[in-house]
Amino acid sequence: MDKVKIGILGLGRIGKIHLGNLAGKIEGAEVVAVVNPSEEGQDFARKFNVPFVSSDANVIFDNEDLDAVLICSPNDTHADYVTRAAQSKKAVFCEKPLDLSLSKVKEIIEVTQKHNVPLMVAFNQRFDINFSKIKSLVKNGKVGDLRTIKITSRDPAPPPIGYIKSSGGLFLDMTIHDFDMARHIADSEVIEVFAKGSNLVDPAIGEAGDIDTGYVVLSFENGATALIENSRQAAYGYDQRLEVFGSKGMAQANNNFKDTHLLFDEKGVHGSRPLDFFMDRYIDSYLHEMNAFIQALTQGTEPPVNGIDGLKATAIAIAANKSMEENRPVKMTEILDV
Amino acid sequence: MDKVKIGILGLGRIGKIHLGNLAGKIEGAEVVAVVNPSEEGQDFARKFNVPFVSSDANVIFDNEDLDAVLICSPNDTHADYVTRAAQSKKAVFCEKPLDLSLSKVKEIIEVTQKHNVPLMVAFNQRFDINFSKIKSLVKNGKVGDLRTIKITSRDPAPPPIGYIKSSGGLFLDMTIHDFDMARHIADSEVIEVFAKGSNLVDPAIGEAGDIDTGYVVLSFENGATALIENSRQAAYGYDQRLEVFGSKGMAQANNNFKDTHLLFDEKGVHGSRPLDFFMDRYIDSYLHEMNAFIQALTQGTEPPVNGIDGLKATAIAIAANKSMEENRPVKMTEILDV
Amino acid sequence: MDKVKIGILGLGRIGKIHLGNLAGKIEGAEVVAVVNPSEEGQDFARKFNVPFVSSDANVIFDNEDLDAVLICSPNDTHADYVTRAAQSKKAVFCEKPLDLSLSKVKEIIEVTQKHNVPLMVAFNQRFDINFSKIKSLVKNGKVGDLRTIKITSRDPAPPPIGYIKSSGGLFLDMTIHDFDMARHIADSEVIEVFAKGSNLVDPAIGEAGDIDTGYVVLSFENGATALIENSRQAAYGYDQRLEVFGSKGMAQANNNFKDTHLLFDEKGVHGSRPLDFFMDRYIDSYLHEMNAFIQALTQGTEPPVNGIDGLKATAIAIAANKSMEENRPVKMTEILDV
Amino acid sequence: MDKVKIGILGLGRIGKIHLGNLAGKIEGAEVVAVVNPSEEGQDFARKFNVPFVSSDANVIFDNEDLDAVLICSPNDTHADYVTRAAQSKKAVFCEKPLDLSLSKVKEIIEVTQKHNVPLMVAFNQRFDINFSKIKSLVKNGKVGDLRTIKITSRDPAPPPIGYIKSSGGLFLDMTIHDFDMARHIADSEVIEVFAKGSNLVDPAIGEAGDIDTGYVVLSFENGATALIENSRQAAYGYDQRLEVFGSKGMAQANNNFKDTHLLFDEKGVHGSRPLDFFMDRYIDSYLHEMNAFIQALTQGTEPPVNGIDGLKATAIAIAANKSMEENRPVKMTEILDV
Repeated sequence: MDKVKIGILGLGRIGKIHLGNLAGKIEGAEVVAVVNPSEEGQDFARKFNVPFVSSDANVIFDNEDLDAVLICSPNDTHADYVTRAAQSKKAVFCEKPLDLSLSKVKEIIEVTQKHNVPLMVAFNQRFDINFSKIKSLVKNGKVGDLRTIKITSRDPAPPPIGYIKSSGGLFLDMTIHDFDMARHIADSEVIEVFAKGSNLVDPAIGEAGDIDTGYVVLSFENGATALIENSRQAAYGYDQRLEVFGSKGMAQANNNFKDTHLLFDEKGVHGSRPLDFFMDRYIDSYLHEMNAFIQALTQGTEPPVNGIDGLKATAIAIAANKSMEENRPVKMTEILDV
Repeated sequence: MDKVKIGILGLGRIGKIHLGNLAGKIEGAEVVAVVNPSEEGQDFARKFNVPFVSSDANVIFDNEDLDAVLICSPNDTHADYVTRAAQSKKAVFCEKPLDLSLSKVKEIIEVTQKHNVPLMVAFNQRFDINFSKIKSLVKNGKVGDLRTIKITSRDPAPPPIGYIKSSGGLFLDMTIHDFDMARHIADSEVIEVFAKGSNLVDPAIGEAGDIDTGYVVLSFENGATALIENSRQAAYGYDQRLEVFGSKGMAQANNNFKDTHLLFDEKGVHGSRPLDFFMDRYIDSYLHEMNAFIQALTQGTEPPVNGIDGLKATAIAIAANKSMEENRPVKMTEILDV
Repeated sequence: MDKVKIGILGLGRIGKIHLGNLAGKIEGAEVVAVVNPSEEGQDFARKFNVPFVSSDANVIFDNEDLDAVLICSPNDTHADYVTRAAQSKKAVFCEKPLDLSLSKVKEIIEVTQKHNVPLMVAFNQRFDINFSKIKSLVKNGKVGDLRTIKITSRDPAPPPIGYIKSSGGLFLDMTIHDFDMARHIADSEVIEVFAKGSNLVDPAIGEAGDIDTGYVVLSFENGATALIENSRQAAYGYDQRLEVFGSKGMAQANNNFKDTHLLFDEKGVHGSRPLDFFMDRYIDSYLHEMNAFIQALTQGTEPPVNGIDGLKATAIAIAANKSMEENRPVKMTEILDV
Repeated sequence: MDKVKIGILGLGRIGKIHLGNLAGKIEGAEVVAVVNPSEEGQDFARKFNVPFVSSDANVIFDNEDLDAVLICSPNDTHADYVTRAAQSKKAVFCEKPLDLSLSKVKEIIEVTQKHNVPLMVAFNQRFDINFSKIKSLVKNGKVGDLRTIKITSRDPAPPPIGYIKSSGGLFLDMTIHDFDMARHIADSEVIEVFAKGSNLVDPAIGEAGDIDTGYVVLSFENGATALIENSRQAAYGYDQRLEVFGSKGMAQANNNFKDTHLLFDEKGVHGSRPLDFFMDRYIDSYLHEMNAFIQALTQGTEPPVNGIDGLKATAIAIAANKSMEENRPVKMTEILDV
């Protein structure tokens, strides 16, 4: 493969980031086609001299020159687009979630396996420089045998109620990143899930049938336990922390702050808030993630986050929902027979 | 009351700290009698010019001049000594736990109420300067409405197996401090407890029927949730942290370190370990705790940590044990009808 | 002015950064011409669809459509290029130093004044987010009346000896950024300079007639004092710190680190090194700097760092050299009659 | 020597700390006599069961049982008391300064040498746990060859004007600790001193002929340079920092804070002030210092801070005064022919 020829489906916030990275910062790939329903997205693509810009997805699926498709369109299109990409023999990079339904996720995996196309699921947080440092410390034995993984993830502010209604709920929409991260760090499978949820941030979220504050205890096969805490709102900004404790020590990834200043005055010492916006906080992770995808394609290796990873994270989220509803620990075997 | 006249029962590590504080650093109190079985403890007391030093507890209970008794003797003597102190009309300061049995704890509370003597339970961590700062921030509304309380408590190394066997288990021996702290911070009562435990540090602990790693989720009446994590061993030292998250922000109490140095070299930046030993870490808390007891006595106010606090923490620990055994959330009403 | 039309002279490391920023991240400007002697730089420009790409500087000076010129070519071309830009009525953005000779710097200022073209000197560190936060705290009175400014600037490794030989020496090449920063923060003029220098890093630097370690004490008209320390080498990476102390408090800007991880193990706590490379550390400052230049042009305001700023910083560096040679404090009036 | 028998001259703030430490925390010494003019100090001594308590210094000098004398009386008595202690063959521990006059300091050293009694000068900051960690890192080669030592020392508030008038001035009263620390860390002698001073805190200090803000550049024989900054007032509390930079890295000692809390809110992150009072900040250093003195006596080794150390620090302070007055670098050979 000379240069990986890429088509992008959907040029919203994330699609634009991928396009920008592929155009200016990543060697070995070129964006050949972009499909987006609105003119605004199409104009954006034209600024990068993308040869084919259209509102018709067939421009991508029918283009035999394309090697890979990035699926950055709305969640409910993912399953269909992955299937069509697989059928047209293109490698797939799909934003999370593959689907909210476990059976559809399984179908997605099957179709990509049947057509033998690589599938990468975009859990970008794995590629955050802080979290990947923790992963490498764990992998290199610096914390010893794993005991406890703690993940804190608090958004600066809740998304619109409309978004929440179609999100699948906190565990499938937000915690799913943490489920994947916990599996990634633990390097082991979850055997039991216990979850609690509360509606403390905004009554409207509760009225929409969702929670805004979640707590999950994951028990892993290897004996480790993960404690995950989520909130849809944090007054002081975006809070994204990871702590791993083991027999030899503890590794922590802390937040990124707006600047490094400290002001000492009569009242004490003061510093800036963490970076607020997920695009600021995780901007580099998208670049590292896309590099990893392109590298896997050019080297013919398995993508670092695959369909099974997507399936497992979804299944854990579904187990968490069941645990919360029934107020009891749920075995993963109740959810998934893999 | 002129000067509070105090008798101390038991001059082990903690008893010696209390004696030293009362002798040199606390106004308004004097230690008149010390009872300890061994010569070593008695000699220690004599260096402080304590008038009555003996191995016979009656020297304290029969002394009508004494206003208060500190019970720092082995755990299985607490209930009996509190009863005798109450009967002889002395105020009681008792090391934790009051007792490992809920019914005995209730009896202790009843006898002190019947004889109308103040009872303070020595949850010293409430008086740690870091944790009391967090309490005051919460009380003053700085974190807003409470959502999440996180407590990390990891010991540098496990106690001897002999100690563990008679300790009542991790939740009653170690986590009990955190149960009290969570209640103290939440200013609300626990309604449900979910607990998991593992044996990851030393197989001998498991063989002794105990866990060395514990996780507890506490649900409070006011909607807050506490996540507690305990370990009997941490390679990097004594780890004692508290985090409180609410609608207006987050407050954290971090560890105290051996010194403030940082070394920057080719590999990165390096600092010292946290203070290892609980006596170093919490040394000031014992002084503040004793001051609070003496102040309550001289001002005729209720001691800041009372028998009910001891009862509740014990009951939560018992609920945690039940939850762990039965692998389900346990309602506090199953344990305690208060 | 519709869109500021820009020509860039020199497409080395810095020129490329400016081109990338202007092409992708800055509104209100477009790069119309790029001049660079080598094919490599010209090819880079072509990737951004720059209309005129040449090795001939006249392509810029003769182009009447151009509004502004960025001078990113070698130091010894600056004076000539500024002059030609002024004569052809283009606004000038010039990398530091304007020139190593005070008289030539004065000529540069005069020619831009005579032709009434704006001149901005590229002291990019003023636009670093950490340092500009400190400036704004000072400006807003948060540290009160200024007393002390401390600047630490240590490079990860010395430049090649060839570079050092034509650099003008440590004070004119490296400390000049700190002289400008000190003036910027103090908002006052230097009246006296005392400087010491040592050759501790590499004997070859001393043999080349330069120092690699420098210390400067600046006395300001407003009573403040600045202490500056420079080193050409730091084993732990690029160290760029600023501290401002005044009657109401102290503000510090600390380094940016590679990541936020902390590893706690038996030996203590460990974190990553600071960002090593000036392009990583200061990458955002170039964007903010260019935005400020474009904004000044479009709004018709004075550029935030002008020729006088370039002159003053150069004069302080010359005073520092004189002070070091004669081992005595040197009055600025000995150097500059402004 | 069985137990070191000690007499204390002067029971002010420092004398009381030494008495408390010797009575309760230090093995191998006992306080046999205390001399203090006021009843208050004498009463304090009696609480510790000191056998001889008097207002007459002869009670100490005439007591042949005494092995050592601690001189904690007013500065202008030091020289006389050291002389009498030496003549009566007692080891001497003397608070700083030995004397403000260089010739008197020399006499003190001579008389102790003539009578062959150990002399320790109480530069307690050497025994601070943060600073001694830095010393040990330097000694163990962790920072490599020394380049720069930076000392920041800012008091929370200036002392009374009366104190300032008899203090000998900022450099002899306050900076003298830093001169000693710089020599201690550099393990080399100062060859040149450049000093500047300002009156920025309180005009009354200037009217009293003193400065309240000082800057000193020390050049050491081994090529290292120290930058010292002092202020009589800091709005945010007591600021005591040390930084050492060398060929292999940098070591920093930071402040001690009141507590470890951090509050994250809408405005950013906030922590407590540093410890304000020198007695809080340095309380442990007095214990370590006294232990070192007792240990030197019992083991017959040279005290770790001797008369020459006192002489050198004083001489540097005098050189700093001369440098400030004459606004030029002063060679140490101008001050001291040692």
